[in-house]
Amino acid sequence: MSLPGIATPPNELTAREAVLRLRASRIREVANASLGRGDVLAFWFGEPDELTPEFIRRAGIAALQAGETFYTHNHGIPELRAALSTYLSGLHRPVAVESIVVTSSGMSALMLATQALAGPGDRVVEVTPLWPNLVEIPKVLGARVECVPLAFAPSGWTLDLDRLLAALTPGTRALYVNSPNNPTGWTITREAQRVILDHCRRLGIWVVADDAYDRLYFGEGKAAPSFLDIAEPGERLVSTNTFSKSWLMTGWRIGWLVSPPPLAIQIGKLIEYNTSCVPPFIQRAGLTAVQSGEPVIAHTVERYRRARDFLIPRLNAIPGVQAASPPGAMYAFLRIDGMTDSLAFCKKLVAEAKLGLAPGVAFGPEGEGFVRWCFASGVERLAEGVDRLAGSLRT
Amino acid sequence: MSLPGIATPPNELTAREAVLRLRASRIREVANASLGRGDVLAFWFGEPDELTPEFIRRAGIAALQAGETFYTHNHGIPELRAALSTYLSGLHRPVAVESIVVTSSGMSALMLATQALAGPGDRVVEVTPLWPNLVEIPKVLGARVECVPLAFAPSGWTLDLDRLLAALTPGTRALYVNSPNNPTGWTITREAQRVILDHCRRLGIWVVADDAYDRLYFGEGKAAPSFLDIAEPGERLVSTNTFSKSWLMTGWRIGWLVSPPPLAIQIGKLIEYNTSCVPPFIQRAGLTAVQSGEPVIAHTVERYRRARDFLIPRLNAIPGVQAASPPGAMYAFLRIDGMTDSLAFCKKLVAEAKLGLAPGVAFGPEGEGFVRWCFASGVERLAEGVDRLAGSLRT
Repeated sequence: MSLPGIATPPNELTAREAVLRLRASRIREVANASLGRGDVLAFWFGEPDELTPEFIRRAGIAALQAGETFYTHNHGIPELRAALSTYLSGLHRPVAVESIVVTSSGMSALMLATQALAGPGDRVVEVTPLWPNLVEIPKVLGARVECVPLAFAPSGWTLDLDRLLAALTPGTRALYVNSPNNPTGWTITREAQRVILDHCRRLGIWVVADDAYDRLYFGEGKAAPSFLDIAEPGERLVSTNTFSKSWLMTGWRIGWLVSPPPLAIQIGKLIEYNTSCVPPFIQRAGLTAVQSGEPVIAHTVERYRRARDFLIPRLNAIPGVQAASPPGAMYAFLRIDGMTDSLAFCKKLVAEAKLGLAPGVAFGPEGEGFVRWCFASGVERLAEGVDRLAGSLRT
Repeated sequence: MSLPGIATPPNELTAREAVLRLRASRIREVANASLGRGDVLAFWFGEPDELTPEFIRRAGIAALQAGETFYTHNHGIPELRAALSTYLSGLHRPVAVESIVVTSSGMSALMLATQALAGPGDRVVEVTPLWPNLVEIPKVLGARVECVPLAFAPSGWTLDLDRLLAALTPGTRALYVNSPNNPTGWTITREAQRVILDHCRRLGIWVVADDAYDRLYFGEGKAAPSFLDIAEPGERLVSTNTFSKSWLMTGWRIGWLVSPPPLAIQIGKLIEYNTSCVPPFIQRAGLTAVQSGEPVIAHTVERYRRARDFLIPRLNAIPGVQAASPPGAMYAFLRIDGMTDSLAFCKKLVAEAKLGLAPGVAFGPEGEGFVRWCFASGVERLAEGVDRLAGSLRT
């Protein structure tokens, strides 16, 4: 089959090396071990347990009935961009419509921001442990990722700001921060934001803020501290967000980003080459969520606060378990004494205790020794889960 | 604002250079010139003029009412993958479920295939003129794109096969072919497919076939000749497709791809980092389309055949205009004698004749001197458009 003088075909029957090296989900690996077992009590996925409220679904249905089935503008329908401008200007500082781009999920917003900013050989810095997607995306584009770890203490996760600033060297392309953080719940302080922004301003480093959990915040105010509160409109900041967590819309795949308008124009071009636009009937549902969804957020935050305040003390009461109470998001990231292989530990938990948790190593090497527990769930289910974990650790 | 000893911030307030160089849509540039003018007769966008059939919309609505609002598997819901396997196996050769990946549009399928295959410095070859997205995607990943042009004759567009094979040198990563082709309607022959596949086999070159218009085919058989008919399941072929054209679902953003299973696994990983999954209620609508949508395709093909057979002779009857009758897709790509700036020409058409066509240069330098006319439209509208074009060329 080979031409004279031509070597064996160079391309393997699979993806290029950089893609092969991307991490597959370790959470899926554990979940797959329980396929077909209905008796597993699962807290591994980062997904609310409640379906999308009916009034939001109805808005999508009405648009489908009205025949809204054609392409829309790459940047999103004007009504939704305007509503997001009002929403964000109320939460933070004035955010112009021209800064707002509607995206096919928060995930897509992060991919687009990375495509726009990080090319082959570029260096980006990320605060970890972190959901793996954020660490892997820049590698798809050929960029290099350096991680700065958070430190765990039973009183809470903390960021070593000096260490982060030292990593943000001249020529660094971007800093990625997810706060409130998945998986730890760590939430950046206003003071830390100011220091980081000041440093990045001086060196021309972009800040990419994954603000997916900004409304799932148990502190004061309507949202977690955001770089959008303190950065000027023309600064090197991209804030990405999603409808998934605030309005219980995970399966809808709609999100948005805020960026300086010159970058937003370029990101519109990239949207054309990624998904072209978000379905119009999904944008209509999103519009209803933004305009009328505050009670959904209030209900969810109260529910998760109760879940957190129930779960954390009970976890800490188990000998050998330590968990900090998270100021935001919907996860307990708990340390288990003496446990050094969280993947094996979680597989054993599924098999023997029928309890589904996510292995800490799924969130980077800094997460080893921990497991993640999503507490977007009712208190009775959580109690049963605690019993199963305690029972398993006793044996 | 600068640190002692540190130069001006290196990052401009916009995207990286490779992204700035990506082409923005020249079609949009013309369309924007008519914003707010309701009297323009527009044939510039590649979109059917009929909305999604009600039975398909109803399937999506039913899933929303049933509460299908959560994440699905990265690769798509099993029912849809199985239905696509049945559908494709009936049209081509047996296509296993493991080879099929549901994607967030045909656009996304092409982006995913390119992310999987083409990295920085890789060389890909494309047959042009071509819709710009396919040429620009590899550049987002840092790959180099070489174009091999089709030749125009009033009897039809033709591919110089020797020239294409000469461009497919050892080490080339992939060949991109869109057939039936947007914008020319050129449709590859079975013989050409065999020669190309044989050559690519010997050199280990991937074939990425954009099969978006495979069912909009006016020749014999139910679909245009496809590489899926002749390639073995384990070969270096990715076929991308979309629900947009066959089932009038442009705004739904759902598509699929067929690839060897080892690559499909890697593409599933990439889906997690791009859009994570397609909304489940959209997949349900897609399932209904695949299972019960043949009458939609039959209706559409007959409608477009009538439109084509009405339009092409009338265009050729205009002095100075030449148009080949396309064997597939939904476009006339017409040459206008003496016209050398299609962007200016189309802007003038909008302003003076209130006729909206797409400039040929939007599809690459090989398209200069031509304009694209989407004939997914009723015959009366087409007749009025022909009158406006003829009138404009007379003056």
